[in-house]
Amino acid sequence: MIGGGQGAFIGAVHRIAASLDGLYELTAGAFSSDAAKSQATGVLLGLAPDRVYGSYEELITKEKQRPAAERVQVISIVTPNYLHFAPAKMALENGFDVVLDKPMTFSLAEAKQLRAVAEASGRLLCLTHTYTGYPMVKEARQLLAAGTLGPIRKAYVEYPQGWLSGFEEGGANKQAAWRTDPARSGVAGAMGDIGTHAFNLLEYVTGLQVTHLCADINTVVPGRQLDDDGAVLLKLSNGASAVLIASQIAAGEENNVRIRVYGDKGGVEWQQVDANTLQVKWLDRPAEIRRTGTGYVGSFAQHNARVPAGHPEGYLEAFANLYRNFALTLQAREAGETASPEALDYPSIADGVRGMAFIENVIASGQSEQKWTAFTV
Amino acid sequence: MIGGGQGAFIGAVHRIAASLDGLYELTAGAFSSDAAKSQATGVLLGLAPDRVYGSYEELITKEKQRPAAERVQVISIVTPNYLHFAPAKMALENGFDVVLDKPMTFSLAEAKQLRAVAEASGRLLCLTHTYTGYPMVKEARQLLAAGTLGPIRKAYVEYPQGWLSGFEEGGANKQAAWRTDPARSGVAGAMGDIGTHAFNLLEYVTGLQVTHLCADINTVVPGRQLDDDGAVLLKLSNGASAVLIASQIAAGEENNVRIRVYGDKGGVEWQQVDANTLQVKWLDRPAEIRRTGTGYVGSFAQHNARVPAGHPEGYLEAFANLYRNFALTLQAREAGETASPEALDYPSIADGVRGMAFIENVIASGQSEQKWTAFTV
Amino acid sequence: MIGGGQGAFIGAVHRIAASLDGLYELTAGAFSSDAAKSQATGVLLGLAPDRVYGSYEELITKEKQRPAAERVQVISIVTPNYLHFAPAKMALENGFDVVLDKPMTFSLAEAKQLRAVAEASGRLLCLTHTYTGYPMVKEARQLLAAGTLGPIRKAYVEYPQGWLSGFEEGGANKQAAWRTDPARSGVAGAMGDIGTHAFNLLEYVTGLQVTHLCADINTVVPGRQLDDDGAVLLKLSNGASAVLIASQIAAGEENNVRIRVYGDKGGVEWQQVDANTLQVKWLDRPAEIRRTGTGYVGSFAQHNARVPAGHPEGYLEAFANLYRNFALTLQAREAGETASPEALDYPSIADGVRGMAFIENVIASGQSEQKWTAFTV
Amino acid sequence: MIGGGQGAFIGAVHRIAASLDGLYELTAGAFSSDAAKSQATGVLLGLAPDRVYGSYEELITKEKQRPAAERVQVISIVTPNYLHFAPAKMALENGFDVVLDKPMTFSLAEAKQLRAVAEASGRLLCLTHTYTGYPMVKEARQLLAAGTLGPIRKAYVEYPQGWLSGFEEGGANKQAAWRTDPARSGVAGAMGDIGTHAFNLLEYVTGLQVTHLCADINTVVPGRQLDDDGAVLLKLSNGASAVLIASQIAAGEENNVRIRVYGDKGGVEWQQVDANTLQVKWLDRPAEIRRTGTGYVGSFAQHNARVPAGHPEGYLEAFANLYRNFALTLQAREAGETASPEALDYPSIADGVRGMAFIENVIASGQSEQKWTAFTV
Repeated sequence: MIGGGQGAFIGAVHRIAASLDGLYELTAGAFSSDAAKSQATGVLLGLAPDRVYGSYEELITKEKQRPAAERVQVISIVTPNYLHFAPAKMALENGFDVVLDKPMTFSLAEAKQLRAVAEASGRLLCLTHTYTGYPMVKEARQLLAAGTLGPIRKAYVEYPQGWLSGFEEGGANKQAAWRTDPARSGVAGAMGDIGTHAFNLLEYVTGLQVTHLCADINTVVPGRQLDDDGAVLLKLSNGASAVLIASQIAAGEENNVRIRVYGDKGGVEWQQVDANTLQVKWLDRPAEIRRTGTGYVGSFAQHNARVPAGHPEGYLEAFANLYRNFALTLQAREAGETASPEALDYPSIADGVRGMAFIENVIASGQSEQKWTAFTV
Repeated sequence: MIGGGQGAFIGAVHRIAASLDGLYELTAGAFSSDAAKSQATGVLLGLAPDRVYGSYEELITKEKQRPAAERVQVISIVTPNYLHFAPAKMALENGFDVVLDKPMTFSLAEAKQLRAVAEASGRLLCLTHTYTGYPMVKEARQLLAAGTLGPIRKAYVEYPQGWLSGFEEGGANKQAAWRTDPARSGVAGAMGDIGTHAFNLLEYVTGLQVTHLCADINTVVPGRQLDDDGAVLLKLSNGASAVLIASQIAAGEENNVRIRVYGDKGGVEWQQVDANTLQVKWLDRPAEIRRTGTGYVGSFAQHNARVPAGHPEGYLEAFANLYRNFALTLQAREAGETASPEALDYPSIADGVRGMAFIENVIASGQSEQKWTAFTV
Repeated sequence: MIGGGQGAFIGAVHRIAASLDGLYELTAGAFSSDAAKSQATGVLLGLAPDRVYGSYEELITKEKQRPAAERVQVISIVTPNYLHFAPAKMALENGFDVVLDKPMTFSLAEAKQLRAVAEASGRLLCLTHTYTGYPMVKEARQLLAAGTLGPIRKAYVEYPQGWLSGFEEGGANKQAAWRTDPARSGVAGAMGDIGTHAFNLLEYVTGLQVTHLCADINTVVPGRQLDDDGAVLLKLSNGASAVLIASQIAAGEENNVRIRVYGDKGGVEWQQVDANTLQVKWLDRPAEIRRTGTGYVGSFAQHNARVPAGHPEGYLEAFANLYRNFALTLQAREAGETASPEALDYPSIADGVRGMAFIENVIASGQSEQKWTAFTV
Repeated sequence: MIGGGQGAFIGAVHRIAASLDGLYELTAGAFSSDAAKSQATGVLLGLAPDRVYGSYEELITKEKQRPAAERVQVISIVTPNYLHFAPAKMALENGFDVVLDKPMTFSLAEAKQLRAVAEASGRLLCLTHTYTGYPMVKEARQLLAAGTLGPIRKAYVEYPQGWLSGFEEGGANKQAAWRTDPARSGVAGAMGDIGTHAFNLLEYVTGLQVTHLCADINTVVPGRQLDDDGAVLLKLSNGASAVLIASQIAAGEENNVRIRVYGDKGGVEWQQVDANTLQVKWLDRPAEIRRTGTGYVGSFAQHNARVPAGHPEGYLEAFANLYRNFALTLQAREAGETASPEALDYPSIADGVRGMAFIENVIASGQSEQKWTAFTV
């Protein structure tokens, strides 16, 4: 693991998610660029001191020097955005598969470069767009892909949060500090941090691509350097339209991710607050409540659940599904087999490139006086 | 009553709403332009045959000829949009107060003319924007107006329906036929029929006015003559931004009106499907569930409820609140008194003019390649 | 109307419910045993002074003296329990049909006597067990009656309230005063006031009869004279078992009526807080959300709804359905026709007798040391 | 780990729960009484072959022979009920701490004997009553213990399931087979399997003890050997009353655990289907929605959550909380410190004895013709 020292939020989540299904074991880490801090984290995590490093370069170099059977196989990178590209590139080039936190890089240019590196390396990359790991999100995608609801006509995706309603970056909140800092986050704040999740969820569930967008991007809190709120009108590749909402100043909201997609026969609705439920609404018959862990859901939802219906699975399990499917894909590769469609269903470098393109396109659209901006990659 | 013969939906709703609190009695009507049909409706409703007329002109003329104590006092107009202006104008000019279905007129020009007529006449007009009649919508407005949630920063308002997902106007559905016909509805379909409700709800709850908008307006169903779907980015008079969604092709949705408004301390959320509840979410303490019929809600919510908490009040009661408050205002006028703020709280001709301006502005914005269109009246 | 003067709660509800569909007109009343107060209410309601009486005896006597076409047809009795029997008996004996508030009488003996009177008179009686008036409650009954969910095996019915958590009868609360007074309410408090509603709902929805019960009856608030809380184990006529809960000291609860019934293929769940929804849960497929006002619900739910799906109908509409169906039954009788099954579906004197039997049996069981008490009528 | 071979449900849950927070590592197991099967499971779990045993006796004996630093510290026992007592006793007597699946033993006599063994051994035992591991269940307990809601007056606890609606034990369902078999489950079916969960949840949340009960116990499915449904009236140690419902034939229900408790100022409501929410209802002000992962909840809820509000934590996290708190308690003991109240908050052998007493008392009450049975241990 690279990053994820003390005070970091997402590092701990990655560690739980990776270990949940017993498919990964944490054996080495460069948890901080401060070697002493890195060692301190290593002690807490019970790692051998000689597997704890003071920099990602050291980790990659030294691990590579170890015998193949004793080195790390997958490197998780959980640093802030500006520290994604370099370690990911170096890891791939040195033969390691990579799990990388989103958004993939600091800029679209970096993202495209990383894609090229990955392709050349033959290594695989899993990007942690957590929300697509939920069984009922996968059920929605599978239902829509099967045409059960007819051709898609409209989609709404939302991610309102309230935690940046005040000028949190002015105080001791480390999360707020880097996420609102252009030097560490990139050109976007809310749009990069949560807008990309909404965008990825939209393209994942619909199976369509955004072709045009029209954005209203705002910085609401005085003194803030990046956007903290936005709404986007979108056109999709089949001609349908969509709306994307992301806000960090929706005071009182937690992490209220929600998506609704309508075909001509009915629609689906999912929201994180009730993550084990997928509502399927029909034009002329009663709505259905589909639930995680039941026998009647599709193969993707089945594959990504662990306990019987009624025992909720949550965010950590969704996150673990990404790690698990990536592991199953790597195991299949190792065994010379083709991974199942369910195993291959993890966010990849292609999603990462589109996510970075979203960030740059949406910010450009926000600054444009023209209504529609073509989505370019 | 003018309009509301058999096969009409909203006429029956108006009759129930008017009579619910015992403040109105239906005594005369021109229910159809076909005199025989009008009489037939009159019989069903138990009216005296000489109070049932074959046209609105006849109704207004003949009722005016009756002694003051024996004539109708308020005229309800429940015809399709293209038949709003003429009867409303004639009623006002002849000294009758008017209840008028929304949207107010066929065009903004008519709306402004009607406003002038009303001002000259000294008569009052109530426009039936039903959703503002719900007690918990009023509670939201009162909380926001009191500043309890801090200055407003963001609002989302939605009205998804699914009933026009197919080409319903091709068959026997009279409602679908006139609502999708430019000759009877005006320049807008969904935006006029339900978009105006969402717009009115937004301005009512926030107490702010829309100043700019950017619309994506679509006609999704092949062969349809008017828009059936749209999404709008908005700027409000205090600088806040908003999003408005209205769709008639959201297959599987009923009449899912919903509004969320955020200040810097918290937000409110209301939706028709759970109409007796207002969620009040706070930045740093538990969300509250405010309920119709309780003792702790504000004066507006108190005034507009009839039964103890837990016994749901619905759409007809919300509609009845408009009629009731209009009656209380008229009674106060008659008594030479000032009506209470709660009684005066009904949608008026000013709302009607803004609603018609919304229709024309939103359609213009939909056709524009420029992002922002200033909202002009 | 007999009873329902100022300060009364249920009188106003009856008036709205009766008038909602335009099938009843209030023309006479004995609103209070104080003639002046009765007249004052009459003035407020716009009645002719000579139709406002100082006692029920006067009302019945004088109305009967009027020509048939000019007298009241139906008498609504909305007094406290101890004043149900005498006016109902006199009304029936003098040829009037009766709407009567629940519980039907002060004692089971009175109830059986009233049944005999009604049978001898040939007049009809409608008992206002409101909750069976909800369209989705009727949908539940119709689904179960059709065997869709298989034979019934288990039922849970609940009515928790919190309004009597304190010693309210010690102050100015008139409702609390008579409802906790054995001289005016009878042998039961909570069990009579809301337990009978739960009992009636159970028998109505399941179509089964209670055969045995085992009750835990409590008076929780010090100083109170009647029960304010209870729970009952029940056996039903097909051998299934059930649980009934009723409490007036469930602090924080509004009027949280809820019923769940399970067959061997699935179950239904309805609760007043979401009155327009019926959940139908299946053993091996997704649960369904059935909704008021849709096209797919059964004939009873269709018949008892007024507005399109998504526009909630509430308590007053449920109450109005009782009045409406009773009116349709009376109209059919007048026309010499057979009323439809949907019209005949109102709570009758038979329900009233069983409700009074429930009260006496449940209180007896509460006092017994034996587990099961046979339900006797 | 003892038990938890292939085909077992709860073994996998224990393994995930134990490892989730990185506080346990699985190093040895006797997964099946068939040594080959046990080894096969060991291979799947990546254990060293010499740490995989063919019986619990072998595991305990051989592990004890290993140097202290290299032997297992805690033994998890996840076998069916009839195989709880012997391995737990042997583990404790040989100096191991124990995690044991519920219900604790096969009979109350065994439970009391195990308690004596544990006391003599000085070792600790954690019983996996999962539902008390949810942060919002702990919040409810803490609020009630603080007296915030006033003295407790009424409680309702429910656990309806539908999975045994058919004669599942007749087929290949191993779970159904042992859970309905008196030789493996003990004297109770539903009451032992899920009734004990409900009972434990009731005593945990209220902080009170059951003193009397009155049970209706049923075997609904023909051919079944144990109860599959029941309802119980209860008296609590402070004089309050309660109702407990548990059913495995509530067709269409998943694992719908729910508890409501009322004081004289308000009540709390929690249900597993919305596990991250605690509703707190007040007599005279708006209900509150308390949520996992927020800053305003009490110390117990804080301590037992891992991710920010809005990211749901589920069943596995609740289960992991039991393991984590047990580990923290053991670590404190090792360090010679007093564990925090939050760490000590795991279900212990005392809960296990009361759970077994519940089973025997409730079955006895079900067979009694007397209403109240005193709860004896």
